[in-house]
Amino acid sequence: MAQARRKVFGWGREGEGLTAAEEAAMLERYRRRFACARFDERAPPPLAALPLRPPRLSPPAALAHCCSSEPYERALHTHGKSFCDYARALAGDYGDAPDLVAYPSSEDEVAAILDWAGDAGAAVIPFGGGSSVVGGIAPRLEPGRHKGSVSLDLCRFDRVLEIDRTSRAARIAAGIFGPALEAQLKPHGLSLRHFPQSFEYSTLGGWIATRSGGHFATLYTHIDDFVESLRVVTPKGVVETRRLPGSGAGPAPERLFIGSEGTLGVITEAWMRLQERPRFRAGGAVHFHDFHSAARAVRAIAQAGLYPSNCRILDPQEAANTGAGDGTTAIMVLAFESGDHPVEPWLRRALECVADHGGRPEAADMTDAHRAGAAGAWRHAFIRMPYARERLITRAIIVDTFETAITWDRFEAFHDKVKAATEAAIREATGRPGQVTCRFTHVYPDGPAPYFTFHALGRHGELIAQWQQIKQAASETLHAAGGTITHHHAVGREHRPWYDRERPELFAAALKAAKSVLDPQGLLNPGVLIDR
Amino acid sequence: MAQARRKVFGWGREGEGLTAAEEAAMLERYRRRFACARFDERAPPPLAALPLRPPRLSPPAALAHCCSSEPYERALHTHGKSFCDYARALAGDYGDAPDLVAYPSSEDEVAAILDWAGDAGAAVIPFGGGSSVVGGIAPRLEPGRHKGSVSLDLCRFDRVLEIDRTSRAARIAAGIFGPALEAQLKPHGLSLRHFPQSFEYSTLGGWIATRSGGHFATLYTHIDDFVESLRVVTPKGVVETRRLPGSGAGPAPERLFIGSEGTLGVITEAWMRLQERPRFRAGGAVHFHDFHSAARAVRAIAQAGLYPSNCRILDPQEAANTGAGDGTTAIMVLAFESGDHPVEPWLRRALECVADHGGRPEAADMTDAHRAGAAGAWRHAFIRMPYARERLITRAIIVDTFETAITWDRFEAFHDKVKAATEAAIREATGRPGQVTCRFTHVYPDGPAPYFTFHALGRHGELIAQWQQIKQAASETLHAAGGTITHHHAVGREHRPWYDRERPELFAAALKAAKSVLDPQGLLNPGVLIDR
Repeated sequence: MAQARRKVFGWGREGEGLTAAEEAAMLERYRRRFACARFDERAPPPLAALPLRPPRLSPPAALAHCCSSEPYERALHTHGKSFCDYARALAGDYGDAPDLVAYPSSEDEVAAILDWAGDAGAAVIPFGGGSSVVGGIAPRLEPGRHKGSVSLDLCRFDRVLEIDRTSRAARIAAGIFGPALEAQLKPHGLSLRHFPQSFEYSTLGGWIATRSGGHFATLYTHIDDFVESLRVVTPKGVVETRRLPGSGAGPAPERLFIGSEGTLGVITEAWMRLQERPRFRAGGAVHFHDFHSAARAVRAIAQAGLYPSNCRILDPQEAANTGAGDGTTAIMVLAFESGDHPVEPWLRRALECVADHGGRPEAADMTDAHRAGAAGAWRHAFIRMPYARERLITRAIIVDTFETAITWDRFEAFHDKVKAATEAAIREATGRPGQVTCRFTHVYPDGPAPYFTFHALGRHGELIAQWQQIKQAASETLHAAGGTITHHHAVGREHRPWYDRERPELFAAALKAAKSVLDPQGLLNPGVLIDR
Repeated sequence: MAQARRKVFGWGREGEGLTAAEEAAMLERYRRRFACARFDERAPPPLAALPLRPPRLSPPAALAHCCSSEPYERALHTHGKSFCDYARALAGDYGDAPDLVAYPSSEDEVAAILDWAGDAGAAVIPFGGGSSVVGGIAPRLEPGRHKGSVSLDLCRFDRVLEIDRTSRAARIAAGIFGPALEAQLKPHGLSLRHFPQSFEYSTLGGWIATRSGGHFATLYTHIDDFVESLRVVTPKGVVETRRLPGSGAGPAPERLFIGSEGTLGVITEAWMRLQERPRFRAGGAVHFHDFHSAARAVRAIAQAGLYPSNCRILDPQEAANTGAGDGTTAIMVLAFESGDHPVEPWLRRALECVADHGGRPEAADMTDAHRAGAAGAWRHAFIRMPYARERLITRAIIVDTFETAITWDRFEAFHDKVKAATEAAIREATGRPGQVTCRFTHVYPDGPAPYFTFHALGRHGELIAQWQQIKQAASETLHAAGGTITHHHAVGREHRPWYDRERPELFAAALKAAKSVLDPQGLLNPGVLIDR
């Protein structure tokens, strides 16, 4: 059975989304939060009404078979999934629509498209699942330099190509989506176990290009460590790194391309390190008096060398919003897993750390509680969250997230400053209070990766400006207080101002020099990460 | 009490070295191995007899206070500790001697030296402990480009500058030697726990510049993962990366400098992630029928997610050579350690993996055997090894090591090929059989880092050519069979031919472009890693 096609506006496929009951319950919560009887609802324009400019480029005959300028394809490849993307789409702004969408099936076709783009003066935007929340896949061009744009969709690179069971690794085409990747590994008893929130609609290549954060809260936090080797097609040729479990031969070549966000080349395949599918699990939810106590328990566990797969905490408000708590306690979702051995000794020690900081396990028996109670509620909310956003913005409800990392010594003051600044900005931008909540997505021995969600009631027509004012205040504060502008959402265009200040000047110059060698005409993803 | 000065020829300080009894026992083993009644002994030339050319450069007045052209200083900074370095030094070849040795005390002085070097046409070689075994610190210059050379010794950057107990991290000056680093951390209950074989005579900055491999056999194998942030003085200015527990903001800037081997800048300080000092330990030696069985047990442990601090194996010959075994069994040195919790559950599961592959623990009680029996003997031999080399080469005994990494699926064939090719090369180069042994230094879920040692009896006057013939055959074979030319010894000049073939062409071009931005005059460590 053919799958429904992807939504132009929203998450996933046409027909997917919140149920009526889920939506009603959600809106009821927001009515109470904003003390607002009803919302001003606007519908996104239908596809037929989108003001798409006529394509400025047409593909050469040799590439016509894998290129499309159908309005649906162009519209689908115009916006990512940032709040700003949704706001533009809702307002009918499709000025960034690509002139062409290309669907290569081979590296030769990728190379041919890059060659042709060089001649035609086209910007080329590598496209995986299109789930960027930082303006990473909008086909924007530099006027005067580019005559049009091509969105290069890797979805035909959709296979696990080779499996090495002995080394527990696989060679995988980069355009594969999360579920297909796991389905193809499952018969071999293996798993990548990389589950970003975008899992269903993001790709291996996208994860690598953006340093995606995944399933494991500790140790293997980013996709980076799972990359054994890479193949990248650049405008100057193919880069293939050697398949090795480790090396000390000069600066690691993979690390130049991991996080390059489509600016240096098109990642076409990778050898990835895999996991056994877990056979042993233990964990569950733990309640704490407040968020900072929970954070101290996380620090103790992170520094104990126990490496839980999950060790995330939610502040009381975030716990309440996701149905994981009643708003009176902070919650830790703690889990250990293994494909090899029972994990109770690990859990036992972690629960001692938890008790030292006043944590109270929800279940008396924590050995099989990871999908029950608060932990299960949180998990469900996490999976459904991407579907909520398209139903909120149509009511002018501004919900967005931003995330960072900071060392433990600065964390508490950092958290309080960032939260206060964002709350103040919401009041200023929208004229009424909103809400800012925090959780940890990943944790390290030397600090956590705090993840903030904010909720504000905006006004149609002003959504982008209101969002920008809040984003600006939050980003300024977290940058000034020592955080990184992104722990795993990537830089794209929306984080550029703060990334440029975080990144050492001379490293920027070195990166620009590297780009000038690999992409001398500046075809690839202009405006993302670096300017020419 | 002032310490004795460092040896110009040999390891450590004057007066340190093997005892007469250690040396006699060692030579007796070699006499038996080569069936050779006595060795042809040559002494290295005394300092006063070294043919040092008159300095071609003199420092400007402003830098005279931190520069020296004393023969001792120049000789000390001429050679690293590779076999080839020892052979040159033994033959009195000091043609690479630097014209000046600079001892800056501040980043301003480092910058001033780089400025002056640019004007004077001097090559600048960053120097930590001088323990390079790959020709990484020899002051070689490009004729026509450089008028002379300066060895830039960081030994005055010798302090732990700041400690963050909460995040378990410290800001540390890069020229500090291993023992001083640990001594300054000890009062705080902390440790970097990075113990390369060169520990006593290598520095933090050197470890970072060369991607040094350390104490931990799993997980934290290279220094890379302990680097929280870096300061690097380049000819174009200072690079300082942000202190963060993790980030996903573009390609990681630290990773460009980690492994840059002094070619992009001078690492002056780093925030390093630290460990609690271990309070709990368990482990000991395990005997196996043969090396490949031991390797399969290592694979099982590495893939089980147990993360032992030690999980090294020695083949029967290497075990015999180091006094850890009698030559009939391969030996695994297995250890778990923690600053937080007892590690018996971890050890128990590892011993089950071991038993699956026929491993027999040496002690009935493995909970406190890590310094006893074979494990203790191995540890002692490991620490004394650097002192043996200066006493062997004077007898024309060629002993050298090379190391690599390879995925598990290819390991067994790889090992057998590399060993056979090296043995054949020894026979060809020296006219008699030698010995090639193997151990693992580090292990990953997807493959081991095998470390080979070879022993051959050469002839004075031909040592370099004989060594080169063996090194060439070993390197060609391991490269062709898919290994990396170095897992943790670095590239320097001696590994360049194979590094150049292992490294993707376009990555080399990108690296060269980065260097041209940071070091436009090509002052830094010419010939290492990249050419202009």
